[in-house]
Amino acid sequence: MSKVVSYAAPSAKEPLGPYKFERREVGPKDIQIEILFCGVCHSDLHTARNEWQNSVYPVVPGHEIVGRVISVGSEITTFKAGDLAGVGCLVDSCLTCPDCGEGLEQYCDHGVYTYNSPDKHTGKMTYGGYSNQIVVDEHFVLHIPENLDLAAVAPLLCAGITTYSPLRHWKIGKGSKVGIVGLGGLGHMGVKLAHAMGAYVVLFTTSPDKVADATRLGADEVVISKNPDEMHKHLKSFDFILNTVAAAHNLDVFTELLKRDGTMCLNGVPEHAHPSPNIGNLIFKRRQIAGSLIGGIKETQEMLDFCAEHNITSDIEIIAIKDINEAYERMLNGDVKYRFVIDMATLQE
Amino acid sequence: MSKVVSYAAPSAKEPLGPYKFERREVGPKDIQIEILFCGVCHSDLHTARNEWQNSVYPVVPGHEIVGRVISVGSEITTFKAGDLAGVGCLVDSCLTCPDCGEGLEQYCDHGVYTYNSPDKHTGKMTYGGYSNQIVVDEHFVLHIPENLDLAAVAPLLCAGITTYSPLRHWKIGKGSKVGIVGLGGLGHMGVKLAHAMGAYVVLFTTSPDKVADATRLGADEVVISKNPDEMHKHLKSFDFILNTVAAAHNLDVFTELLKRDGTMCLNGVPEHAHPSPNIGNLIFKRRQIAGSLIGGIKETQEMLDFCAEHNITSDIEIIAIKDINEAYERMLNGDVKYRFVIDMATLQE
Repeated sequence: MSKVVSYAAPSAKEPLGPYKFERREVGPKDIQIEILFCGVCHSDLHTARNEWQNSVYPVVPGHEIVGRVISVGSEITTFKAGDLAGVGCLVDSCLTCPDCGEGLEQYCDHGVYTYNSPDKHTGKMTYGGYSNQIVVDEHFVLHIPENLDLAAVAPLLCAGITTYSPLRHWKIGKGSKVGIVGLGGLGHMGVKLAHAMGAYVVLFTTSPDKVADATRLGADEVVISKNPDEMHKHLKSFDFILNTVAAAHNLDVFTELLKRDGTMCLNGVPEHAHPSPNIGNLIFKRRQIAGSLIGGIKETQEMLDFCAEHNITSDIEIIAIKDINEAYERMLNGDVKYRFVIDMATLQE
Repeated sequence: MSKVVSYAAPSAKEPLGPYKFERREVGPKDIQIEILFCGVCHSDLHTARNEWQNSVYPVVPGHEIVGRVISVGSEITTFKAGDLAGVGCLVDSCLTCPDCGEGLEQYCDHGVYTYNSPDKHTGKMTYGGYSNQIVVDEHFVLHIPENLDLAAVAPLLCAGITTYSPLRHWKIGKGSKVGIVGLGGLGHMGVKLAHAMGAYVVLFTTSPDKVADATRLGADEVVISKNPDEMHKHLKSFDFILNTVAAAHNLDVFTELLKRDGTMCLNGVPEHAHPSPNIGNLIFKRRQIAGSLIGGIKETQEMLDFCAEHNITSDIEIIAIKDINEAYERMLNGDVKYRFVIDMATLQE
């Protein structure tokens, strides 16, 4: 057992503050990691505040974890002390079901999330990356490329893979016309990744002040989605639209932009339901509305290697952990370009 | 020009009654068909009563047409007088766009429906199959197998292909577990076709009195969709669900029955929107909600040949055309097993 310092939400109504607990012993297949940086995902806020009605307190959020290996279990050959290592949204799954067999652990019925999930090892809940170290089964530990800025890599573990996985699943590449809806933590990664895959990328936003930034990030075009004339020019032209906006909105203005057999994939579950989509939009061009959840471990490694090759990281703002509650408020106001990352050196014992 | 007798709706509020008009001259690429039987589709009723707000009167409905060739144009080599012939929902398309190039004329932006659609040849609206003859471009005329009951073939031209096309598109076959929602004109064809393709077929219905019939038609299981316990047994188990129910209903109870990467395809546009679907159901198993529209001409011929090989037709009740208004009322009450077909010999000049 090792003593850990962290920041935790003691209840839905209280701010996050210091919290001490113990990580499990390093088992033969475990890797112990000193956490250097942890990205701040909107899911952290949802869980800290029990917005999904499933939080068990205290909640130690954080699933965009990068750091260095402290020690490894007796059976570990793929990592050694001092190696860079990363952990994303998953720390366990059954590893025997068809989903796990295909490297799609994120769809396993027995997946264990990095925080606020029943922990097989301790019988308690899992505690995430707002902490100074973590012990994780090697299957769920990623190799982090040495050539990228480490703090800016952290958000790849959730925002990166959540956009990379659907772009790969729907076979985006050269010749594809791809829409990305929303320029936040997910959307800005979607733009960078789709661009690097060779697609023609159109960013949809409601904010005219995001046009310049979207272009800088790799968008070939930026469309203000509240402008029907601008939208109309793109009718029936997209192979794929990745919709990263979780707030309830009219999906029809996007589905009608898809080509025949095109797919719009949603990344977020809205707190209030979207207006019911127009089924005619689907029927008359055999279009599809789909969802996608993070990505599997093998694909996450592939994504990290892709990012290393294309020199892609997240655009980030580094914060001290004492500022996490203020960062949540700024995130709610859309005041972040495009991801907060906690410098874990600011977490003093 | 040839004089035609028909039944037409003179307005949204009046019953259908006799109506005379002229068909165009038989052009070099045209085929003139004596209509022997015409199926009665719910779309006929929607259009006769202007329920889709796009009807131009008089409306001569009917797009499940079978009959015998009377004469053919000078360039026609594939049909001759006396041959059986069929016409479905489409009588024209551009034949040059990518959709047409792939044999998917139903998705062509310039498709012309068999009735209530602007007619390229006459400048008026197209008039459908509630008539004694029709003149159609050969590209849109189907060969009808001689071994099947002709009246019972008629509904294959819409109800048959509308269910066959998505089953083929989503690669249903031996080893697939397929759900069919609703046992009406479309649903009963979906059961027969999916069964003949080798799938394990589960029919979902709200009516316990349909269980015996569904089993007779080829369903391996019948589930009463209002029974949560019965539904729960099938969680996460379907490769594909074909939802033929156009009335607004809760889609979530079906999407959660899909396996990871499974698709629910909708065939009908509801008059009132379905309750907004739970996007979480899509995200957590990468499921999809799709739509599909009839089928292309090549695929319609393939479907007819498949039906000939597997001895599949629609279950029908033959009516005289004078009873069409009563048939519409019975259709609204679900009082038909499973398709009305008009015997066009009852249409007297």
